[in-house]
This record gives sequence, C-alpha cells and structure tokens, in this order.
Amino acid sequence: MKLPRAFALLTLALLSLAPPAVAQEPAEPPTPASVLAAAPATDWRAIDPEDLLVIVLAPDRDGKERRVVIQLLPPPFSQGWIGNIRTLARAHWWDGTNVYRVVDNWVAQWGDGEDDGEPVKPLPAGLREVPESEYVTQVQPGPEDGRDFVLTPEREEVVINRWLDSYGITAFVAGWPVGLDDQGGRTAWPVHCYGAVGVARDLSPDTGTGAELYAVIGHAPRQLDRNIAVVGRVIEGIEHLATLPRGTGEAGIYADPAQRVPILSVRLGDELPEGGKGSGSEAAGQTPIPRFEYLATDSDSFARYLHVRASRDDPFYQVPAGGIDLCNVQVPVRRAAAD
Amino acid sequence: MKLPRAFALLTLALLSLAPPAVAQEPAEPPTPASVLAAAPATDWRAIDPEDLLVIVLAPDRDGKERRVVIQLLPPPFSQGWIGNIRTLARAHWWDGTNVYRVVDNWVAQWGDGEDDGEPVKPLPAGLREVPESEYVTQVQPGPEDGRDFVLTPEREEVVINRWLDSYGITAFVAGWPVGLDDQGGRTAWPVHCYGAVGVARDLSPDTGTGAELYAVIGHAPRQLDRNIAVVGRVIEGIEHLATLPRGTGEAGIYADPAQRVPILSVRLGDELPEGGKGSGSEAAGQTPIPRFEYLATDSDSFARYLHVRASRDDPFYQVPAGGIDLCNVQVPVRRAAAD
Repeated sequence: MKLPRAFALLTLALLSLAPPAVAQEPAEPPTPASVLAAAPATDWRAIDPEDLLVIVLAPDRDGKERRVVIQLLPPPFSQGWIGNIRTLARAHWWDGTNVYRVVDNWVAQWGDGEDDGEPVKPLPAGLREVPESEYVTQVQPGPEDGRDFVLTPEREEVVINRWLDSYGITAFVAGWPVGLDDQGGRTAWPVHCYGAVGVARDLSPDTGTGAELYAVIGHAPRQLDRNIAVVGRVIEGIEHLATLPRGTGEAGIYADPAQRVPILSVRLGDELPEGGKGSGSEAAGQTPIPRFEYLATDSDSFARYLHVRASRDDPFYQVPAGGIDLCNVQVPVRRAAAD
Repeated sequence: MKLPRAFALLTLALLSLAPPAVAQEPAEPPTPASVLAAAPATDWRAIDPEDLLVIVLAPDRDGKERRVVIQLLPPPFSQGWIGNIRTLARAHWWDGTNVYRVVDNWVAQWGDGEDDGEPVKPLPAGLREVPESEYVTQVQPGPEDGRDFVLTPEREEVVINRWLDSYGITAFVAGWPVGLDDQGGRTAWPVHCYGAVGVARDLSPDTGTGAELYAVIGHAPRQLDRNIAVVGRVIEGIEHLATLPRGTGEAGIYADPAQRVPILSVRLGDELPEGGKGSGSEAAGQTPIPRFEYLATDSDSFARYLHVRASRDDPFYQVPAGGIDLCNVQVPVRRAAAD
C-alpha cells in the first residue's frame, strides 16, 4: 500500500524534566497538592482587585447565585483590549446583556449578541481600536542571560521554564502561560487554555472592542493564539459557563432568545465592597469578593509543581508521563487565607 | 536573582507539516469543513453497531431525552476491559445505576458509585481481571518500512502520521489517536482526549472491571495515559455529560445522592432496533440509533484534514499555528447519510 508521506517523522527532543533540588526528600512521593501545601507564603502573589472582572449571571433554576471571576492579564499583554474592558465595566455596559452562544468543547460567549441585524447597544466613549500587532508583545531581556525575559523593566517577574510543545516554544511568566517566538524569544503572547477569556471579533483587520467576550470551555484551542486577543482567565466559577446548555443555532448561538442567560452585572474588583472603593454595587447582585493569589511562576514551588505535574509518581500513577503540555499545567490560583 | 535551572531549554524540533499533494488547488483556502465535504465516500469507514455503547440517561428537567453514544476501541486495544463492558451491557447491568461524580475540566463518571461502604451491585459472571500490562499493546511492523505499523496482520489500517507532542511520539491508527513508545514504536496505547472514555479503578494493581466508567469533559488529561485503560470515546451526546452540575463532595462526587443522574439503560448497538438483532430494548428508553462513520486516518482526506487543522489560513486566521497537539485534531465522526 502506497502511503502519503506528507507528515515526516520528526527528530525527537523529548522533554527531560529533571527534578529541582529539594533540601530534604519527603517520605511520600510529592503530589501537586502536597507541593502547594508546602509552598511558603512568599511564593504566592496577591491578585490586585482592580485586575478582577466579576460577572454575576441571573440565578440558576434553583435560585442559586452564579458568579464568574476573571483575572485580567498584567501589562504588557493585551492592554489595548483590557483598557476597553475597564471602560466597559466602569460604564456598567454589560449589565442587562447575556450569554448568547455556547459550543461544546469550544467556548461560552457573552455580550450584546448583535448577531441578526438587531440594533447594537451603544458602546461607551473612549474605546480604542486595537491593531492586530498587539496580539503579541515585545518582552525585555532578562537580568541574567539571554534565555530569560522580564515583562517590563519595572516588573522583574522572570520566566523560568521553557519548553517545546506542539505549537512552538512555551513558558510561564507572571503567573501566565505564554507562547514565545522562535527567533530569540523576544516576542510573547498569552495562549488559549481551558478557562482563557478572549475577545470575539469579525474578520481581519477587526480585532474586537472587548465588548463581546468568550471563555474557553474545552480542550485548549491553541490555533486561536495570535489570531484573537486573550485578555484573562476565569479563576472561579467557570462551571457556571461550562455547564450551560449548548446552543443549537448557527455557530452555537442560542436558537431561542429565551435561552440566553441574563448578565445582571459586570464589575471590576475595585468597584466591589471588599475590593476597596465600595461603590455600592450590591444592587446589581454583586457581593463582596474574596482576595485571590496565584503561585509565582518564578518560584521554586512552581518549579516543583511543574515537575510533579509532569512526572506523577504518587501511588495512583505507575507510568509518569515525563512531560506535560502548557495548558495541562494549570497555574495554581486560590483564595487567600482570611486575615 | 538566582533562578532554578531545573528545566533546561530544549533542543527544538518544531513541527514541519508540509501540505500533502493535492491534484488541484482549490480557489478558496481549505477549511476543515471543506476538506470533509470533499472527502470521497471511500475515505469514510462505517462503525460497526456492535462497537457502539449507548447510554440513555433520565430525561432532563424539561423532559428532553439524553442519549450518549460511545464508540469502543477496535482490537487490539484495551480488549480485556472491552470484553467486560460487553458482558456488563448484555447483562443490562448499568440499568438503574447513575452518574455520580462530575469534576469540572476533568471527568463525568458513572456506574454503581460504591463510594461509602454501601453494598455493591453484584457483577455478572465472566468478568476478567485485566493486568496492567494491557494498558499498552504490541503492534505489528507495517507493510512498507519500519516507520509504520498495522494494528494486526488481519487489519492493515496503517499509521500515516507521527509527530512529537509534549508527551512523546503520537500517531493515528484506525481512526484513533495513540501514543507510541520511543524504542522503535512497537508499543501503542490509546490516549485521553476530550470525550475519551476510561475505566475507573482503585490503586495498582487494580485496573478496574469496566463497570465504573468516566468520560473526559475538559482539557486532555494525558498524565492518565498508560495509567488507566481508555476503552472508547463519546461520538454523540457528550454535552449531556459535560453540562451536568459539578459535584461538591469528596473528589467531585455528588454530595447529595438526589443529584445523581439516573441511567435508564446501557446497550450495545447491536442490541438496538436499527443495529441488527433488535431485542426490543425500547422499554428502557432506547430508540433506534443511526449509523456512524469515521474518517479513515490512513486516507488522503485525513492527511489534508490534519494539515488544515494545523495550519489554518482561511480568512479568520492571520497566523497559522504550524502545529497541533494530538487531542486538538479531533478525528471526524459523523452520522452516515441515510440509505
């Protein structure tokens, strides 16, 4: 039988994840949970409430509240769209909009849902048209050698891990999974993992305003990287989007408008009682939000976490994978301990 | 700042997916959908009804039926457990069991749910204890050269694509994504992609009987490969599992037994009216099932599909990814055209 030879066998460079040095070997094989439990408080970084976007959906059929908490990306990533999102949130623009599109193993999408020629809700003043060039961002050489970089000279949160996945070079920086270019690693971009939040758009050169957003609710659709702006990730409440009925209309839009899930309000964390200013948003279903923190991706704890995630040898696992793809790592985010 | 050097920069072997030769270039850039539309009927393979496992859940709150159709793996993969599953299905063992565990971005699990010391539903006679060695399977050298293999001498469905992903060497054979060992590629195993169905188990050396099953409802948990038996994949109705409320008990088990989702019946396709023997299973909520087919993974159409999935350049995409991970490919499965 003659076979197409289109896809050649590749030269292999299998991941070789050596375990980081640990002062004392624990008696039990470490698990991701045990690594996190052992991480010192200094390895966790607080998430600023102003970097949170909090969506309150209408209660479910049992009257249970549904709150989705999104962490926005730090500078320098996707800041054009994120600026727009802050403007939209401060204008309370999303209040009264809805989740109008849900596709299995793909996305749940919300906003005005202007899909069939109906009048579009007027947008607030001050939104930028963001160019496609901002899908990627220039990063700075690191302080030590050419293999690391920092986000900005002011924010020396350094990449410590790089490897190859099916899409190219990948790394973690400032708590986020990113892709890197292969010409020296001086361009980086946030990637589409489960829970990633992106900006819906029309065809190029449109890049979307940020008014129509989606969250990934399936296997990472990495083909969207550098083609759509990623602006954040859901850090709590993704199940309120992932369990919504799938749409049966074109492209997964709810065929019956009655299926749309009302959005009661969307607020930045610093508009909420616990977040600082306390502007009295409770009327729109918003309640105080807890403080969140993420495991610093330039910490020793994260290096151990990554190693253990890639090479499980606790009792349930007989064959450690020996590698892990960027989106299967899942940077740890947790509620901060109470004061 | 001193950085851990645990994770070295890897030598890179980026995917180089050359486009397969096409007799005539289409005027529009191809899309996955256009490749499938152009695939000749001979590139599609019928799925035998006896390889289908059909689960009927209790109707949802709106009285809508919920049917989940699973395709079981072909020989030689996981046949010990699949034999057990056939025995369990023919004994109608799952009728009256339930979905008792749902974890976001992880799995939905069903069966007897013997989690808290309650009596376990007696299992039918004739189930095998399958050894861990059957997580992987020996495959045969291919007919052409050492780089390809066939499933069995009787079934010459050949691997045509191999590449490296974060977990090792991967390929497609007989319509399924598989991992390959890196000592000559003579061992293969089915992998955990979105929708994959696996056999829940206790600690090693237990490998599970097949009575407790789960489906993956999130990003591919590839660390489970070779640690748990994969026996099939959901080819229709995954949304009935993926949208179930997430469990809040230990390990995502439904804390309130009332939340469990009743399973009305589970049948092999050849027990159902349209599938052949027609043993009158309608009483358990089963209705005739359509015929299904998959795109042959050793066909030119699949090679084109793979290329286009990895390198989108239709108008929505400005930057083709240039690669794709095994579980993002999604081998096409469809309902066969009506007779």
